[in-house]
Amino acid sequence: MTENPCSSNLLDNAVKEFSKLPGIGPKTSLRLVLHLLRRSREEVEQFGNAFIRLRNDIKYCKVCHNISDTDICTICADERRDGSSICVVENIKDVISIENTQQFKGLYHVLGGVISPMDGVGPSDLAIDELMARMEAGDVKEVILALSPTMEGDTTNFYLYKKLSKFNVEITTLARGVAIGDELEYADEVTLGRSIVNRTPYKIM
Amino acid sequence: MTENPCSSNLLDNAVKEFSKLPGIGPKTSLRLVLHLLRRSREEVEQFGNAFIRLRNDIKYCKVCHNISDTDICTICADERRDGSSICVVENIKDVISIENTQQFKGLYHVLGGVISPMDGVGPSDLAIDELMARMEAGDVKEVILALSPTMEGDTTNFYLYKKLSKFNVEITTLARGVAIGDELEYADEVTLGRSIVNRTPYKIM
Repeated sequence: MTENPCSSNLLDNAVKEFSKLPGIGPKTSLRLVLHLLRRSREEVEQFGNAFIRLRNDIKYCKVCHNISDTDICTICADERRDGSSICVVENIKDVISIENTQQFKGLYHVLGGVISPMDGVGPSDLAIDELMARMEAGDVKEVILALSPTMEGDTTNFYLYKKLSKFNVEITTLARGVAIGDELEYADEVTLGRSIVNRTPYKIM
Repeated sequence: MTENPCSSNLLDNAVKEFSKLPGIGPKTSLRLVLHLLRRSREEVEQFGNAFIRLRNDIKYCKVCHNISDTDICTICADERRDGSSICVVENIKDVISIENTQQFKGLYHVLGGVISPMDGVGPSDLAIDELMARMEAGDVKEVILALSPTMEGDTTNFYLYKKLSKFNVEITTLARGVAIGDELEYADEVTLGRSIVNRTPYKIM
């Protein structure tokens, strides 16, 4: 699009702001802005303020570093959850993904990334000391390392494993294998190979 | 996604606001909100306020009904443009599309829709009286009917044609034909048929 084809700086400015978001080009952006223009002033105010309020008021849970409206997030504050099991994840997206499965009733620990020398991220940049402090407070019986199966994730897993081994806890990782619903012929060789090596006893679910 | 999986109402609220936009689902929405969270407070404030300011301060040009920051839009106020030629379009998106071609140096008239009895849109809902007022003011030599080639667009074209025929102006429409760069075999039959009937003298461009 050319410099200011729409004869309105206000419109142009709004289109530019949307285009800054990843995956939103100028055409989509214009479509979204024109959609907003058709809504009421109150709705648009609510829309704009939602992001401003989020950015200004958001906190990070003092226990698990998950995103939160309060000092302690609702997951850590929930007494029905099992405090003896801690699931270590890379970021809040992973917390949301695991929460959506409704299969985990323990607590989380958000590292805020993985060890990646290429990106200049070392152990001290992550919430690893805070994890150790939680371990020292006792009560923890199991730590689940739920990081991505990438080189950086594996490095971080190994680093954490060494750090955690001085505590008397069970250290587990997510099961790797052929995805449920996947055809064997489409599974990649590494995954299929590992799923044969790590075969599990047949269980009726 | 479940009701509140991310333990933050602020985040949830922001995700919901994005999801209200057309073509943005909850996953994309979360991705965009997390992106905004990584930006500075000032940037997010600028982002949110761009839409609020747009909605509150936007005007419609008193001459052509195009979107504008001022009472008269920059196109109508531009003295270099040819006031004797008026291009009638359905909405501001069409103005932007035509402006992007940089091939039209006249003025516009934004109808705000097309006649569509099915949607309850009659001639009185459109800026047709305002177009007639511009015609009566004189100076106009050509009116280009640049509406969509749909049933409603054609109906509106015909209605405008009858209304405009009492003025001494040339009435034209956009050329229809095979798109530039299109293979003949992929052009639809109606378009190809009309492009043969309305063949034009060969011109070296």
